[in-house]
Amino acid sequence: MLDTGNTAWLIVATILVLLMTIPGLALFYGGLVRQKNFLSVIMQCLFIAGVISILWFGVGYSWVFGSAFMDGNPMGAFIGGFDKMFLRGIGTDVLLEGPNIPEALFALFQCMFAIITPALIIGAFAERMKFSGYVLFISLWSLIVYNPMAHWVWGGGWLMEMGAIDFAGGTVVHINAGISALVMAVMLGKRSDYKHGRPTTPHNVPFVFLGAAFLWLGWFGFNAGSGLAADGIAANAFLVTHIATAVAVTVWMLIDWISNGKPTVVGASTAAVAGLVAITPAAGTVDIFGGMVIGAASSLICYFMVAVVKAKMKYDDSLDAFGVHGIGGIIGSILTGVFATRFITGAEGVQGALYGDWHQLGVQIVATVFSVAYSAIVTIILFFIVDKTVGLRVSKRVEEEGLDIYEHGETAYNN
Amino acid sequence: MLDTGNTAWLIVATILVLLMTIPGLALFYGGLVRQKNFLSVIMQCLFIAGVISILWFGVGYSWVFGSAFMDGNPMGAFIGGFDKMFLRGIGTDVLLEGPNIPEALFALFQCMFAIITPALIIGAFAERMKFSGYVLFISLWSLIVYNPMAHWVWGGGWLMEMGAIDFAGGTVVHINAGISALVMAVMLGKRSDYKHGRPTTPHNVPFVFLGAAFLWLGWFGFNAGSGLAADGIAANAFLVTHIATAVAVTVWMLIDWISNGKPTVVGASTAAVAGLVAITPAAGTVDIFGGMVIGAASSLICYFMVAVVKAKMKYDDSLDAFGVHGIGGIIGSILTGVFATRFITGAEGVQGALYGDWHQLGVQIVATVFSVAYSAIVTIILFFIVDKTVGLRVSKRVEEEGLDIYEHGETAYNN
Amino acid sequence: MLDTGNTAWLIVATILVLLMTIPGLALFYGGLVRQKNFLSVIMQCLFIAGVISILWFGVGYSWVFGSAFMDGNPMGAFIGGFDKMFLRGIGTDVLLEGPNIPEALFALFQCMFAIITPALIIGAFAERMKFSGYVLFISLWSLIVYNPMAHWVWGGGWLMEMGAIDFAGGTVVHINAGISALVMAVMLGKRSDYKHGRPTTPHNVPFVFLGAAFLWLGWFGFNAGSGLAADGIAANAFLVTHIATAVAVTVWMLIDWISNGKPTVVGASTAAVAGLVAITPAAGTVDIFGGMVIGAASSLICYFMVAVVKAKMKYDDSLDAFGVHGIGGIIGSILTGVFATRFITGAEGVQGALYGDWHQLGVQIVATVFSVAYSAIVTIILFFIVDKTVGLRVSKRVEEEGLDIYEHGETAYNN
Repeated sequence: MLDTGNTAWLIVATILVLLMTIPGLALFYGGLVRQKNFLSVIMQCLFIAGVISILWFGVGYSWVFGSAFMDGNPMGAFIGGFDKMFLRGIGTDVLLEGPNIPEALFALFQCMFAIITPALIIGAFAERMKFSGYVLFISLWSLIVYNPMAHWVWGGGWLMEMGAIDFAGGTVVHINAGISALVMAVMLGKRSDYKHGRPTTPHNVPFVFLGAAFLWLGWFGFNAGSGLAADGIAANAFLVTHIATAVAVTVWMLIDWISNGKPTVVGASTAAVAGLVAITPAAGTVDIFGGMVIGAASSLICYFMVAVVKAKMKYDDSLDAFGVHGIGGIIGSILTGVFATRFITGAEGVQGALYGDWHQLGVQIVATVFSVAYSAIVTIILFFIVDKTVGLRVSKRVEEEGLDIYEHGETAYNN
Repeated sequence: MLDTGNTAWLIVATILVLLMTIPGLALFYGGLVRQKNFLSVIMQCLFIAGVISILWFGVGYSWVFGSAFMDGNPMGAFIGGFDKMFLRGIGTDVLLEGPNIPEALFALFQCMFAIITPALIIGAFAERMKFSGYVLFISLWSLIVYNPMAHWVWGGGWLMEMGAIDFAGGTVVHINAGISALVMAVMLGKRSDYKHGRPTTPHNVPFVFLGAAFLWLGWFGFNAGSGLAADGIAANAFLVTHIATAVAVTVWMLIDWISNGKPTVVGASTAAVAGLVAITPAAGTVDIFGGMVIGAASSLICYFMVAVVKAKMKYDDSLDAFGVHGIGGIIGSILTGVFATRFITGAEGVQGALYGDWHQLGVQIVATVFSVAYSAIVTIILFFIVDKTVGLRVSKRVEEEGLDIYEHGETAYNN
Repeated sequence: MLDTGNTAWLIVATILVLLMTIPGLALFYGGLVRQKNFLSVIMQCLFIAGVISILWFGVGYSWVFGSAFMDGNPMGAFIGGFDKMFLRGIGTDVLLEGPNIPEALFALFQCMFAIITPALIIGAFAERMKFSGYVLFISLWSLIVYNPMAHWVWGGGWLMEMGAIDFAGGTVVHINAGISALVMAVMLGKRSDYKHGRPTTPHNVPFVFLGAAFLWLGWFGFNAGSGLAADGIAANAFLVTHIATAVAVTVWMLIDWISNGKPTVVGASTAAVAGLVAITPAAGTVDIFGGMVIGAASSLICYFMVAVVKAKMKYDDSLDAFGVHGIGGIIGSILTGVFATRFITGAEGVQGALYGDWHQLGVQIVATVFSVAYSAIVTIILFFIVDKTVGLRVSKRVEEEGLDIYEHGETAYNN
């Protein structure tokens, strides 16, 4: 029987997540770029909200959560099946057992993960990517990187069978996007005016803050919604998400203050995203203590990555898509295997290394390593395919004068 | 007995819709105007949030949903009655049967429709309307255009009796506002510096995008909330709203790309609104296939209206209130009679011409034609009344130097 | 047994309130300051979202809602106990009886009140406060002003025992913050370039509007959520909150129009906040009529305070934290004792002076006077402590050139 409370919560979680995270990301990334490239970032986000949504309902949901290939078909190793394309057969009265919510709603909730994930990669190639190349790359990436990964972890695939825990997207969303981001940043090369280790000045810091605030809000939809019910697990996921983020903001502020003498809005906003990312896979299994440690770890390590390692390694991850999402995702995915506790998961539930059980940590490491490898390899292949066909990088002249006017015929601010 | 799940969903739907759509519209329209007129758009929105809310609870709700005149009183042809003015008698324990939610909450949810509808018209007369004339016009319009129309379609009036389907506001909201917008644009005349067919440059494109994103979010409250329950119908309405909008964005982007060589943020944002509008009346009765066709149709036809017809016809619908809301509403209202399907409406439910039943299409055409006629005629009358008394148009000097400084004594951005 | 409907509503209310009110306040206050100080306001808000959240779960919740000291321990006069620090023992299955929601969720909902309250004070000392002094002051204020006050009114303390009504934060939030704001404004002294009675020009009026809109939205979480259930009381609280705010906006617009000839966006936005504040303590006990009177009173009196009294008294409450929150809170707290009605509170419920019962009014006055006194006295003490140690005011040079560049090494807008 339909549970109206769970359904109410999932509808709202989906709405919040959909429409706070895409504009949130557009403002966060868009505030960080130079003014001449702001609209190109927004356009990339709008493309995803449009086209990737269609791809998801057309094929993605079926590939991830279909079941036709699960009975021994060799294709079943990659995808679930073609049986639910365009939600075939899923009318208004088909319920998901357990939470007792409409399956159509579950498909919509999952659509949000499918659209935010490719959007995260934008941060790596901002200010130098051709729109036509972007369109082809992101569509292919969604089909053959996102879908199989989501199937393996959430749709009944082998990582799920093995017991890998990814409550709301550590491997599927953040490692996946973050590693692809690194690959793209390295292979695409630096922006022509990029000075090593000197970040370009964000053109609109209030938008960076507002974007981070929207992400913070929308993320509660992802993390508190992933249990698919309005219950104690949702409340705890909400709690640990908030506290991890609060700790991440506090720690980054302190590092900024100690090392540069000045706590910054850009730093604290970045920290909020890092904290949100790291707690994502763990939000269903850790308690307040685990959340605080994960939040602190995310700020410490991500700060080190974006302020020290990036400069040293000389890759131009323009807006730190790898430094925040890739690294934050890895931190969260592995620490889930350390801090998962039966206080949250129940008497028979999983627990982490801290509580004496090393098995889960091993599983988390396997899932993490596999995710890194799969998304790196396929992204490299996609890079070559798209680069040799429509091309991926704008000309130097376009880069200098700005993508907005050349690629979209618009300028952000006028009189 | 109170259903807390349905109540929870409706409270949140109402909150989201109220406070994302009014600021969303203020940013969407406000970003499209010149900087010197930004605050005048915001002020017009704030006026509606204040005064029209009071008018709604004072008289509107009773006129639309009251029942005193429904027992043969000739006034009953226009309005429901005076019995529920200021929600008389509706305490904390009066429930709406069926969804089992508090009636006070239903009145609030309906308030949102009452305030967004007149706000849509702002787009037609932006940059040249006198604030005092606006105040009088919008208040009268709300009373004698919006209230009777809502009564006829939703409050038990003759269009409802006839079986017209308007799930979340195709006739009541969008045709109503869009046709009045066209009347106002034509009668008020062009802005003094308007070049035929050349839209003025939007002063803040990121705000246009952000406004569209807020509308997209808030709209889910309208469309998924209009069934008044957190159930499968709500999930489907949410789904078709999202997919129609995604298709609309995709199609507009393609048209822009093909015809001008460059996909634009302003275009994709406008497309999102057009898609949301067109799916609004249909969201309770069509499936994913119907949603996709309606989304595509809205982009194709609205693009043609705003890029070709407007230039040809030489009216100055400043921000395309008619081109998007009027046309989008007509598309959705009529296509509801084509794509309504028993897969969604149930074994005894209505179905459209595509499924062999031409009756509903006839009803939809009658409702559409009547809405167009009623709102056009009464708006023409209101135009003359207000124009002859307080006046509707600012002087040419005010128009040149900007409404913000002359009408409100403020400028948007300072140091 | 867990009520999923109530839980769904409280999760969402908490999300909305958390992440619309903090960014809302950052934009509202930040739009009102000069551009050179925008980021300092944002940073102060981010600090609170981080550090005060940690303090709340670490000690605050336990101090306010703990029970260890309630059995005769003399400390029990101030705080509840140390028994719930870091939510000790509150797992996923501990429910709050009555609404039957997880206690962890209640702690999160209360966290929102704990973080918004100190943030309100920012308006009083904007554009001249040292960040290090701010950090110390706000942390101490949260611990020894906010926590005891919340315990007395909401956590079972003596004001609660006495029957004081503060549905969603009139005394605990607004009087508390507003009076401290006045103390800080007076003791810190005027901004060096402050002209008596001439407000400085807001640098970004659209952000002032957008901030007010976010606050309006987020506030429904506070006010409609404070009954902890998705029921008729919530619907009525939502209704009276909206109507009070609508009336406040309308009245302020009229005063502006009559006295200056021009209704303003800054005025209407300020009015919205004043109306929201004044209805806050009353939202659970008054009907639509009481809500309208309270909304009108808030605009009339707050307008008088910020336009006349502030100029006469020559204190520099930069962004009217006292004039709006202090005064609005006092209006609401006292008028709750006038307009509370059994139509809402039920046959055995409290009622106000208007309905012939003067007792409640007396209780409200006692609670109001005590709140004013407590927060004034402790804030004075804190001022001296922080001023003598790390210092509270920036140098004149920093004030002239802007806090953003000197205190945070950033500028809001770049190219």
